[in-house]
Amino acid sequence: MHSALQPLARVRVAVDCMGGDHGPSVTLPACKTFLDAHPQADLVLVGTAEALAPARGWPRTTLVAATEVVAMDDAVEVALRKKRDSSMRVAIAQLKPGEGGRAAADVCVSAGNTGALMALARYVLKTFDGIDRPAIAALLPNQKGGFTKVLDLGANVDCSAEHLLQFAVMGSALVSALDGNDEPSVGLLNIGEETIKGSEVIKRAGELLRDAGAAGQINFHGNVEGNDIFKGTTDLVVCDGFVGNVALKTSEGLAGMLGQIIKDEFTRTPLSKLAALVAMPVLNRFKARLDHRRYSGGALLGLRGLVFKAHGSSDAFAFERALARAYDAARNRLLDRVHDRIRNTLAGAAGASGELDITLTVAAQPPAKAA
Amino acid sequence: MHSALQPLARVRVAVDCMGGDHGPSVTLPACKTFLDAHPQADLVLVGTAEALAPARGWPRTTLVAATEVVAMDDAVEVALRKKRDSSMRVAIAQLKPGEGGRAAADVCVSAGNTGALMALARYVLKTFDGIDRPAIAALLPNQKGGFTKVLDLGANVDCSAEHLLQFAVMGSALVSALDGNDEPSVGLLNIGEETIKGSEVIKRAGELLRDAGAAGQINFHGNVEGNDIFKGTTDLVVCDGFVGNVALKTSEGLAGMLGQIIKDEFTRTPLSKLAALVAMPVLNRFKARLDHRRYSGGALLGLRGLVFKAHGSSDAFAFERALARAYDAARNRLLDRVHDRIRNTLAGAAGASGELDITLTVAAQPPAKAA
Repeated sequence: MHSALQPLARVRVAVDCMGGDHGPSVTLPACKTFLDAHPQADLVLVGTAEALAPARGWPRTTLVAATEVVAMDDAVEVALRKKRDSSMRVAIAQLKPGEGGRAAADVCVSAGNTGALMALARYVLKTFDGIDRPAIAALLPNQKGGFTKVLDLGANVDCSAEHLLQFAVMGSALVSALDGNDEPSVGLLNIGEETIKGSEVIKRAGELLRDAGAAGQINFHGNVEGNDIFKGTTDLVVCDGFVGNVALKTSEGLAGMLGQIIKDEFTRTPLSKLAALVAMPVLNRFKARLDHRRYSGGALLGLRGLVFKAHGSSDAFAFERALARAYDAARNRLLDRVHDRIRNTLAGAAGASGELDITLTVAAQPPAKAA
Repeated sequence: MHSALQPLARVRVAVDCMGGDHGPSVTLPACKTFLDAHPQADLVLVGTAEALAPARGWPRTTLVAATEVVAMDDAVEVALRKKRDSSMRVAIAQLKPGEGGRAAADVCVSAGNTGALMALARYVLKTFDGIDRPAIAALLPNQKGGFTKVLDLGANVDCSAEHLLQFAVMGSALVSALDGNDEPSVGLLNIGEETIKGSEVIKRAGELLRDAGAAGQINFHGNVEGNDIFKGTTDLVVCDGFVGNVALKTSEGLAGMLGQIIKDEFTRTPLSKLAALVAMPVLNRFKARLDHRRYSGGALLGLRGLVFKAHGSSDAFAFERALARAYDAARNRLLDRVHDRIRNTLAGAAGASGELDITLTVAAQPPAKAA
């Protein structure tokens, strides 16, 4: 359904240069590397005039000054109401169409405070019709050597079945934009494969997803379990933000513990230190394959503008990876894909079940046009 | 509050010898090893007469014949209504007081089908007054070198705040019986440390747990996140069965992937195979520290009898570990500890909030007696 979408010829990336634990000392070098590697990219760098000074004279680069910075520990309220000229907000605002109907950038990247980013993006850009809550999708490495996309990892707790359907639709668009796979398989995270398993919300979500699958709107695989994320059983795993957060943090905790134990064991005795020396190249490859910087950050989906979140602790390599992913997504027109899928799926689902709790402006269009 | 409880002089362990993927070929050798190592243990072995033949003549061992076996894939209904003389059911029934008021065993262990075990245990033993749903607690290894106890890992989806309080109370009793720590710290699994985080149920559970903490009934640490399980931030982590299951399965999936990657990398080239040879002792120690057989299985809590579940895929070592843990728990009178804690906490909480949705026979006692 999306193969007709032509990639963008040029991609304009707005960057919140002040975000993240390290700010411009990390974001600027990353931007430079990214710029050199992507001749079809233009950059819109946002930050304090002083911080942006080193980028003066860069090719294909526009500098936009902002006077304030959202701190990593600022409350959402502070970011929303007090710091009205923050680099984060100004960077997001680059995605809003101006007077000529055209925005200054196609995608925005920030390593700042997630809560503030989500709130500001939602406030400045608004959600698509049909989407109640934006979601955050992340990429987790899987045993097949690829990445399983998981959403929601934002703070969407108390999700309804309809929200989970929305996540499935938006996530499918993400996979198609990033991997060129137009029929990504979707798994519903549950405590067993059988359809009778799970909470009431999950069982109802299973019904909605099955209906959407039967209607050809998504490629629904069925229920998956926690271990399927790392097995790569499906391209996409959908869950509420609470469960997604616990799964992600638990994985981080386990990976941290395993790393610590490997380190302990290889430094315990002179002999094991020797073994470490011999095993070093292998251990380094192991580390590289798990390098979280390769998949750091995530996409905010459901907004009328494309925002990517880089990990707060990003170094220049991780931030450059986030820029590259944002570039790919924008180039492959993720926003149009999300929009198309929302329109098609929600129009279809509303027709099929009549129960969708979503008020649509899209639905005001003639159904023939929507389908 | 429990230091007055004397350990049992002798512990009688009932074993469902037919349960698990391997049945008697694994359970009987494990029982023999366990028996030899625990002179104060008596065994009650339950199984078909034929399967138990090799155990004839063992010291301190009673054989109890059962004619049926619950298969690993039997539906709960089959276990409950069709196979009324299954080894699993007969083993559980050893915990019911007979005519003289004394049961034939102090604790029961099975590696059979979890759903069937939970249903049969609940049907045969009933839950304690004040407990709506039995829970399954498991031990996960942590970075401190100990084990974090996590519950619920059963299928208690759609838990209320009151259920989470019950889990905290029962789990505290478990830690005190297994580790001799009478004031185990309790964490509530959430998506952030702040009390304002989480779903409505979790926020309400946080209030109940704080109240119970303030009343000295549990040692409430506050919210913890997924990574705290493996950090060992608290002795006990409480969550609903859905979230617990996802956290556990996700960890298993990640551990499986990491193991696979280590194997891949160490066998990729002749040089890396050589490195593997040198690193082998270190890698083996690493593997041993993570050996899931050491912490396989879990405790069913909230029932009027002590049931331990060994992992279905247990080998003799894993099953012997489960027997030893069940023995320790029974010896340290886990059942009495759970019962005491339930009585104390629920009496207190009911008095404090008046909102507990639990019907209590205990509450029919004079409050002075209950407190």
